[in-house]
Amino acid sequence: MVTHPDRVGFIGLGIMGRPMVANLIQNGIAVSVWNRSRPGIEAALAAGATEAESPEAVARDSDIVVTIVTDSPDVEAVLFGPDGAANGLRPGSLFIDMSTISPAVTRDLAARLAERDVAMLDAPVSGGEGGATAGTLSIMVGGDAHSVTRARPLFEAMGNTIVHVGPVGAGQTVKLCNQVAGAIHLLAMSECLVLAQKAGVDPAKMLEAVSSGAAGSWMLSNLAPRVLDRDFAPGFMIKLQQKDLRLALAAAQELGVALPATALVHQLFHALESQGAEDEGTQALVRTLESMAGVQVQRGG
Amino acid sequence: MVTHPDRVGFIGLGIMGRPMVANLIQNGIAVSVWNRSRPGIEAALAAGATEAESPEAVARDSDIVVTIVTDSPDVEAVLFGPDGAANGLRPGSLFIDMSTISPAVTRDLAARLAERDVAMLDAPVSGGEGGATAGTLSIMVGGDAHSVTRARPLFEAMGNTIVHVGPVGAGQTVKLCNQVAGAIHLLAMSECLVLAQKAGVDPAKMLEAVSSGAAGSWMLSNLAPRVLDRDFAPGFMIKLQQKDLRLALAAAQELGVALPATALVHQLFHALESQGAEDEGTQALVRTLESMAGVQVQRGG
Repeated sequence: MVTHPDRVGFIGLGIMGRPMVANLIQNGIAVSVWNRSRPGIEAALAAGATEAESPEAVARDSDIVVTIVTDSPDVEAVLFGPDGAANGLRPGSLFIDMSTISPAVTRDLAARLAERDVAMLDAPVSGGEGGATAGTLSIMVGGDAHSVTRARPLFEAMGNTIVHVGPVGAGQTVKLCNQVAGAIHLLAMSECLVLAQKAGVDPAKMLEAVSSGAAGSWMLSNLAPRVLDRDFAPGFMIKLQQKDLRLALAAAQELGVALPATALVHQLFHALESQGAEDEGTQALVRTLESMAGVQVQRGG
Repeated sequence: MVTHPDRVGFIGLGIMGRPMVANLIQNGIAVSVWNRSRPGIEAALAAGATEAESPEAVARDSDIVVTIVTDSPDVEAVLFGPDGAANGLRPGSLFIDMSTISPAVTRDLAARLAERDVAMLDAPVSGGEGGATAGTLSIMVGGDAHSVTRARPLFEAMGNTIVHVGPVGAGQTVKLCNQVAGAIHLLAMSECLVLAQKAGVDPAKMLEAVSSGAAGSWMLSNLAPRVLDRDFAPGFMIKLQQKDLRLALAAAQELGVALPATALVHQLFHALESQGAEDEGTQALVRTLESMAGVQVQRGG
């Protein structure tokens, strides 16, 4: 019989991790935390978490350890680096990585943890800071069914769409599919906005006519209005989008899958990065097409 | 004071025109019709229309003439060819083209009609045969406000999203924006389906996790499930999608706008056309990526 709730350790207290920890605590789950830098720890302590002195110490205090950090090497370091969580994880405990990292690295980490009788789930999320704060993240879970059941109370505290998509690594694959589709939708948005603008048609009228029909997308409904307001603050930063597209293109190459539009969007974002826009929101993609067309999209046409 | 309803003539009784005429008649509007071939005429007569012997005769019987035919030359022929509608249109009457054609040709036709004191609206539609039958088309209208008001009872009989997007030609520009976004969304759908499949993840699970979030689109929700069922029947035929993308790319070239993803999708559809798939539905785009990856997307992974 699984004890519910398990004691939870949480590593990675950035924009996403902080509100996720707060939601765990608000759902009656005890959480001990570690983070590379102080501000994240202070925020988690204010929300009611307890501090541990290393990833290893977090793991010693916990039945389930959750990480949400930036990239594959970060997860690897937190698990298997000096004072890494793997040293503190007891047999029968569960490791859940909610970062977006490589599916292949994920399967490798899971194999190494299995040797210690530690189960692993990959459970990357979508929904951004807003979804993390509201507890409405989409969570794409890879791993064995028993571990998914064990983790469900945690997932339900943090998200509202929880889909068990397959074995370990499948969560990351689905997240990459999500990033592929979303990134291409940003280019679709950019092409139709710039076409309307240069043709002298009010892009706001275009969006009104197009968004609710067969050419509609979340991006068109939610990010195109920000373009009309010339608001390029992140939502989701270009540099993180680029990291995810690199992961998707690398996975596709290993698999022998051609992703021509994903590669195109990745290249166009490179142009923005070279102009210092890496911390801006992904909707800034429109500026690559604007600069080629010599036009600026704005309300009123 | 505008007489309501005006007598309406309708030219073009294909998959879209037939149900549109039926909806006009069901809303108490008298319609006389002409079509290039008999089956469309028989269908319209069965719905209560009257037959005229030429486009010119349709125009003589009518205060408003509506066309919905395939391409720019078809509209031009029906208007200004032998026995063309322009010969029958009286000063003060209104011509509405609901085809998807070139914005530049549209402006040219409008200028030629204006010399005869005939107003023109361009009012292309989206929503397909289903929307035409249900009277729920989206209608993107370009032209002067007075003519739009005059035509509104007709539009409301045929559609439920009616947006006046700008002057003559603007409706066609917005329709091309719609086709640009929709076509690119088809490629986004194809890339994420093939990536999931080749990675060994059930694409149905991927769609379940992805469709309702920030990577969602109408195409992903409505056409991806058909791909999982290997159902490539049209919805919207590849050859018509290609006609619309040619129009979009030509308009963009005239304007000096680069549409790299639109051009990419257009090329991939060429490959399908060369294999004889021009009458299949646009969701068959996925087969171009499947053939490159040596995999077939199917439910269950």
